[in-house]
Amino acid sequence: MSKITIKELAERLNLSISTVSRALSDSYETSEETKKRVKALADELGYRPDVYASNLRSKKSRTIGVIIPEITNSFFSLAINGIEEVARQNGYHVLIYLSHEDYEQEASVARLLLDGRVDGILMSVGCATTNTAHIEAFNKRGIPVVLFDRICDGLNTLKVITDDYNSGYKSALHLIEQGCKKLAYLSLSKHLSIDQRRKSGFVDAANQHNTTFEIICCSPDEDENIRILSELLSSNNKPDGIFASVEKLGITLYQVCHELNMQIPSQLKIISFSSIKIAPLLQPPLTTITQPAFEIGRKASAALFRALKNNFLFVENEEIIVPSELVVRKSTKA
Amino acid sequence: MSKITIKELAERLNLSISTVSRALSDSYETSEETKKRVKALADELGYRPDVYASNLRSKKSRTIGVIIPEITNSFFSLAINGIEEVARQNGYHVLIYLSHEDYEQEASVARLLLDGRVDGILMSVGCATTNTAHIEAFNKRGIPVVLFDRICDGLNTLKVITDDYNSGYKSALHLIEQGCKKLAYLSLSKHLSIDQRRKSGFVDAANQHNTTFEIICCSPDEDENIRILSELLSSNNKPDGIFASVEKLGITLYQVCHELNMQIPSQLKIISFSSIKIAPLLQPPLTTITQPAFEIGRKASAALFRALKNNFLFVENEEIIVPSELVVRKSTKA
Repeated sequence: MSKITIKELAERLNLSISTVSRALSDSYETSEETKKRVKALADELGYRPDVYASNLRSKKSRTIGVIIPEITNSFFSLAINGIEEVARQNGYHVLIYLSHEDYEQEASVARLLLDGRVDGILMSVGCATTNTAHIEAFNKRGIPVVLFDRICDGLNTLKVITDDYNSGYKSALHLIEQGCKKLAYLSLSKHLSIDQRRKSGFVDAANQHNTTFEIICCSPDEDENIRILSELLSSNNKPDGIFASVEKLGITLYQVCHELNMQIPSQLKIISFSSIKIAPLLQPPLTTITQPAFEIGRKASAALFRALKNNFLFVENEEIIVPSELVVRKSTKA
Repeated sequence: MSKITIKELAERLNLSISTVSRALSDSYETSEETKKRVKALADELGYRPDVYASNLRSKKSRTIGVIIPEITNSFFSLAINGIEEVARQNGYHVLIYLSHEDYEQEASVARLLLDGRVDGILMSVGCATTNTAHIEAFNKRGIPVVLFDRICDGLNTLKVITDDYNSGYKSALHLIEQGCKKLAYLSLSKHLSIDQRRKSGFVDAANQHNTTFEIICCSPDEDENIRILSELLSSNNKPDGIFASVEKLGITLYQVCHELNMQIPSQLKIISFSSIKIAPLLQPPLTTITQPAFEIGRKASAALFRALKNNFLFVENEEIIVPSELVVRKSTKA
C-alpha cells in the first residue's frame, strides 16, 4: 500500500505543504476551518505522519523508557502498572527494557536510549552495576532520569524508594520477638544500595538484642542459590530465622525447605521482602515486607512527568520514601 | 554537552560528509583505511548518530515490538525472556507494550507502531479484541507480525500456540478420573480463540464420559471474579472439579477457596493453566497445565527473525504448536 504524503494532501486541498503540516500539528497559526478540512481528508485517506521525520523536527518522542533488571518479579510488574497509569494520563507511551541483571546489557540499552527515542527514563539498576557513567550520560544529554527501588546512592537525581533500613530493622526484630536465636540475612548483592540499607537495619536490630546472625551472599543465579541455601540448612549450626532481602531469594528458600522437608515455622521462621499476591496461599502463608510497588511506580513516573512538563533537563536531587508494611503470616509463627 | 556532528568529523578529517557517513555505516564503497580513521575519531570525540535521522534513511529500527495484555502473569513474563534471548542473538532490541486487556489501548499502541519505530511485531491479543483491523494494518504496511498464545483465528499470519484443544480435553479427563461428578470450566472471554479451543476439548471429554458440566463466564476484573466464584462455591449445586482456563482465574479461585475455608482437594479438585513457578509451594500444591512459555516466546521470535532476515513483508500463514504438560499435584488428588 502506498503511503499518503503531506504533499498529496496539500495538492488535493489546494493548500501549501506548510499550511497542511501546521494544520496537522494543531498550530495556532492555522484557522479552525482549515484544520477541520485538512484533518477530515487526512482521516479519509488514512494519512499517517512518519514518526522518525516528525520526531526529528520536534525532538519529542512522547515516550518514556523504563529499564528494569527482570520481569518475573512481582515488584517490577506492579511498579510498571503504576508507571503506565501516570504515562497514560499524560498521553505518553512506555517502552520497557530488561537488563537481566547484566551490567553490559544495561549499559547497552542506556546507550541506545541516549539517541532521542525517549524523552525521559525510569530506572532500577541491576545487581552488578557499580559504574554509573551510563546513567550520568542521560543527564549530560538533557534526558531526565528518575531511579526507583534499586537506586545508586552517588547519583544526583530523584530517587523513589521504600524505607529500606527500617524494613531490615523490623524484620530482624520480628524474628527475635518470635523466639529466634540465630538469624541469617540473605543478600542478593553487596553492590546494591537497597541491600546495604536493609542489611544495616537488620544488623543493628540483631546487635541491639544480642542476637547472633550471619550474612549469606547469594547470587542472581538460581541454581547457585539452591546450592548455597541447601548447604546452609543442612549445617549443624543452621539458623532458626531467615530474612530474605528480595523476593526471589525468599521463593528459592521456600523451595529448598520443601525439598529438604524442613518444617516452617517450627524448625525455621522465614520473612521475605515480597509483593507477591499469593503469599497468603503458600504453604505455609509467607510473612512479608510488602512494598507499595504500584505506588512507587506511580510516584516515580509522576516525578518524571513534572520534569518533562516544565522542560527540566534534570529532576531535583531528592529521595522520596514510600514505607513498606510488615504483614505477619504463619511462616514466622512462634 | 554539544553533540558532535558528521559535519565536524568530516572537517577534522578533511573528508566529505558522505564519505564519513559511508565509513560509519560500514559501506563497501569505502576503504578499510578510511573506515579505521573515521571510526577512531568518532570514538575519540564520542560521536553518536541521531537515531531518528539514521532510521529515516535506513527505515530499519533494529527493534521489535511486543504487545501483550498483561505483565503480572507468569506465562507472559517467561515468554518475554524467550523472545529477548532470540532478539539479542540477532542484535535487536525489544520494546514491550502492555494493552491491559483493553481493546482501545491495544489499537492505539498498534497505530503508534505502524510508524516505523519497529521492524516487526510479536503480539498476544487482549480478551476484548474482536476487530482485527489494527493487526491487519501491520501487514498492509509491510511490517511482519507473529501472534503467540492469544491468537486471532481469522488472520493470515504465523501463530505460535500450545495444543489448546488437547489441554482442555485432558484436564476434564483428569478430573473425571480423579472421581469428579460435576465439572466447571472457568472462561476468561468467549472472544479468545484459546478459550474456544480449550473449552471445546473440555466439553468433548465431559460429554464422552457422560459427566455434567457448566461454563462459568469470568471477567478481566478480579473483584468481579471473586464475586462470581464465591457465588458458585456457595451454591447448593456446586461443582466438585474445576478447570481454570487461564492462570489468573486459577489464582483467584484459590483465594476464594481459602476465604470460604473450602478444602482442596477433598471438597473441590482444581486444575489450572499456569506457568507459575511456585505452583508446588501453594497450599495445596496446584495441578497445572504448564505451557512451555519460554519456548513459545523463543519460537515466535525466531519465526519473526526468519522473516526479517529474508526481507519478507509477511510471515507464512502457519500454526506452530508447542505442547503443554499436565503436571499432577495434590489439588486434584482422589
